Amino acid sequence: MLKPLGDRVVLEVKEEEEQTVGGIVLASNAKEKSQTGKVVAVGDGLVLDNGEKLPMSVKTGDTVIYDKYSGTEVTFENNKYLVVHEKDLIAVID
Amino acid sequence: MLKPLGDRVVLEVKEEEEQTVGGIVLASNAKEKSQTGKVVAVGDGLVLDNGEKLPMSVKTGDTVIYDKYSGTEVTFENNKYLVVHEKDLIAVID
Amino acid sequence: MLKPLGDRVVLEVKEEEEQTVGGIVLASNAKEKSQTGKVVAVGDGLVLDNGEKLPMSVKTGDTVIYDKYSGTEVTFENNKYLVVHEKDLIAVID
Amino acid sequence: MLKPLGDRVVLEVKEEEEQTVGGIVLASNAKEKSQTGKVVAVGDGLVLDNGEKLPMSVKTGDTVIYDKYSGTEVTFENNKYLVVHEKDLIAVID
Amino acid sequence: MLKPLGDRVVLEVKEEEEQTVGGIVLASNAKEKSQTGKVVAVGDGLVLDNGEKLPMSVKTGDTVIYDKYSGTEVTFENNKYLVVHEKDLIAVID
Amino acid sequence: MLKPLGDRVVLEVKEEEEQTVGGIVLASNAKEKSQTGKVVAVGDGLVLDNGEKLPMSVKTGDTVIYDKYSGTEVTFENNKYLVVHEKDLIAVID
Amino acid sequence: MLKPLGDRVVLEVKEEEEQTVGGIVLASNAKEKSQTGKVVAVGDGLVLDNGEKLPMSVKTGDTVIYDKYSGTEVTFENNKYLVVHEKDLIAVID
Repeated sequence: MLKPLGDRVVLEVKEEEEQTVGGIVLASNAKEKSQTGKVVAVGDGLVLDNGEKLPMSVKTGDTVIYDKYSGTEVTFENNKYLVVHEKDLIAVID
Repeated sequence: MLKPLGDRVVLEVKEEEEQTVGGIVLASNAKEKSQTGKVVAVGDGLVLDNGEKLPMSVKTGDTVIYDKYSGTEVTFENNKYLVVHEKDLIAVID
Repeated sequence: MLKPLGDRVVLEVKEEEEQTVGGIVLASNAKEKSQTGKVVAVGDGLVLDNGEKLPMSVKTGDTVIYDKYSGTEVTFENNKYLVVHEKDLIAVID
Repeated sequence: MLKPLGDRVVLEVKEEEEQTVGGIVLASNAKEKSQTGKVVAVGDGLVLDNGEKLPMSVKTGDTVIYDKYSGTEVTFENNKYLVVHEKDLIAVID
Repeated sequence: MLKPLGDRVVLEVKEEEEQTVGGIVLASNAKEKSQTGKVVAVGDGLVLDNGEKLPMSVKTGDTVIYDKYSGTEVTFENNKYLVVHEKDLIAVID
Repeated sequence: MLKPLGDRVVLEVKEEEEQTVGGIVLASNAKEKSQTGKVVAVGDGLVLDNGEKLPMSVKTGDTVIYDKYSGTEVTFENNKYLVVHEKDLIAVID
Repeated sequence: MLKPLGDRVVLEVKEEEEQTVGGIVLASNAKEKSQTGKVVAVGDGLVLDNGEKLPMSVKTGDTVIYDKYSGTEVTFENNKYLVVHEKDLIAVID
């Protein structure tokens, strides 16, 4: 099992094709892009200055929207995951 | 439903054409620009250093002015939204 | 009505011509420049780390000097305003 | 009257000629330079994280040395002043 | 014995070949990469603002995933180790 | 008398020639350099977040080693001094 | 005697040759490098936000590993030392 540390969240992500011309990523405008993923594991939460842990704002099974270019790719048991910090999660889809 | 996390706000934005010459954005002067949007959902608020949540300063239905180049684009049920942090909201129009 | 958020201040500004040669702004020396405006609305004040709000140091009607290149332009009911953070206000003219 | 905000100080400065060759400022070595001014007005002091104000360390009438390239130029009633933050004051001359 | 200081962790790392063309590292996409290591020693933990030490979230013997480009190489008794800060550890494999 | 403000220290410095070739400073390696000076005046000390002043760690008469490229040059009564922040002092020579 | 200030540590360092080609430092890969030194003097420790001093984590006589490119060179009584901040010490060798 993959147990994320701190305020990290492990996401299962639907891969999207990125449009490129000659290898250059085409950005349609200046805004940040987002993407959707499913939470498969959550960490224990951010440690505050006083040493207490802040409860996580998402839970396993949640469908979340996150900043497209955030996170670290992790391959585990032949599956690819994205591990992002809680602050890079934008919204939960209910 | 789209539930923004932390101090984020989901905005419905009226699209404006940006004047460009050969793809270069034309800025009339050095000032930051602003744009108007309508709040459709608000997060639970910023978490302070002591772990408490700061109540949001805007509510669903508010018309707000925000920094033109802030925020992340989110597409949800075929609608486009802009998700911005509370700090990028400049003013409320009463 | 335009209600600024946080520690922001809405200013009515007297426009000044900026001397340019071929579009390049001419700076006479290395110092920061300032400009004068009139406060037309103030926010509720900066939120401190402990969650309390710091009272604003200026009020509606004050004539203030601010850092020339700070702030965000806002157009409201066909009037142009400049919205600046309290920290960009340099002095009050009594 | 010019009332500086926060931890700012209004200074009356003796202008010095800056040696240039073809518009390039000539720095004799890598050290920061300083200049002397007279305090004509002081703000209420820096606001600490707990909301309290720190008393100013200089007073009106003091002759002070400040970082040469700090501050914002302000013109008031046809006089030129320099407004600097308290942290840019280096020393008081007794 | 190698005793890491602060919130550092000593890792035994399985070396991987990095694909290069003419010495340029080839990155398949914009995401951060990760790598797996085994914890061989842990520090006493991060010192908080109030002077207390935060217990480490991993222990000797744990298999961890860390940010591929973090850490400092240390050679000790002819073995190569990687010393990383706790914040650069992404997840523990159970 | 020259009274330094905050955590500043006034130093009397023995000038050293800097080796240059065509005006370029020659650094023998990547390390920071240091230089020796004598403390002639000290400030009241750094103000902490809670408003208290931290006692200075050096006193008038101390011979100190400081970061070579730190500080601001001050000329006072035809003498040249260097004013540095306490954090730029590396060591005291007993 | 050389008394380091704050959280600084004075190290006696074994010089290593750095491999260069035409004066360019050759880095074998992207990792930070480390080096070994012996502690000959330690400061009083880092001052925390509340004004208390954090005890040093190393003592005179310790053999330590530090970040290769950290620190300031100090020459004292014809010996060369390296003075580094405690945070640049990676590990103690027992």
